Amino acid sequence: MTGSIHHVGIAVDDLDAAIVRWTALFGATLEHRERVEEQGVEAASLRIGDSRVELLAALGAETPVGKFLAKRGPGVHHVAFEAADVGAELARLKAAGTELIDETPRRGMFGLQVAFVHPEATGGVLAEFVGNE
Amino acid sequence: MTGSIHHVGIAVDDLDAAIVRWTALFGATLEHRERVEEQGVEAASLRIGDSRVELLAALGAETPVGKFLAKRGPGVHHVAFEAADVGAELARLKAAGTELIDETPRRGMFGLQVAFVHPEATGGVLAEFVGNE
Repeated sequence: MTGSIHHVGIAVDDLDAAIVRWTALFGATLEHRERVEEQGVEAASLRIGDSRVELLAALGAETPVGKFLAKRGPGVHHVAFEAADVGAELARLKAAGTELIDETPRRGMFGLQVAFVHPEATGGVLAEFVGNE
Repeated sequence: MTGSIHHVGIAVDDLDAAIVRWTALFGATLEHRERVEEQGVEAASLRIGDSRVELLAALGAETPVGKFLAKRGPGVHHVAFEAADVGAELARLKAAGTELIDETPRRGMFGLQVAFVHPEATGGVLAEFVGNE
């Protein structure tokens, strides 16, 4: 069963500048910053109220976020939902014929398990599941 | 002070089909459906866990969402944050020289006060404030 929004992922050109910007505009506070090689990003997790925004800078032009930035420019990259069991969510969607990017969970920020659903399946939104297993 | 994410707004081509899709994929439940003439949309508010996703279909090609769909296709349109006082948030941002779309709040779904911050100010994200006043 899909849970609440875990975070909104935002592709940025300059991570330091974006952190300053989101702090000034929305009173965001930096929770965590991490280089996630598996996803080709340096990421900063910000808290705004009880919510979380994840700023993503590409580690190179050939990474998914690098390609996104080249094609669409900075902006919302994905929406992540909490999942008690990411693998179970993937199995459920796969059984229903849903197009997935990840057939099995992989490691994301905070050491959590993550997996992406193809935007083709959702109607243009890159959706992510995030969970402990 | 900006609060938590109120909803993620998603532009869609077909509102009925999108509701069916989000229900099937993520167990979303339809909370409210409303035609908001002031914004040129028919909108459906869905709950996923404790979060809210707002699906937006354009009432015409010349509406903001209609133009967005023509330019970028369906996908995430905006991110809305709770605000105790939308007008106060706008005044705070305006005093800081932030580019706004709405200088004063206007009526949104559920009869709430809403206002949009220009994507130029946030780094490519159309941000909305939503509040009771």
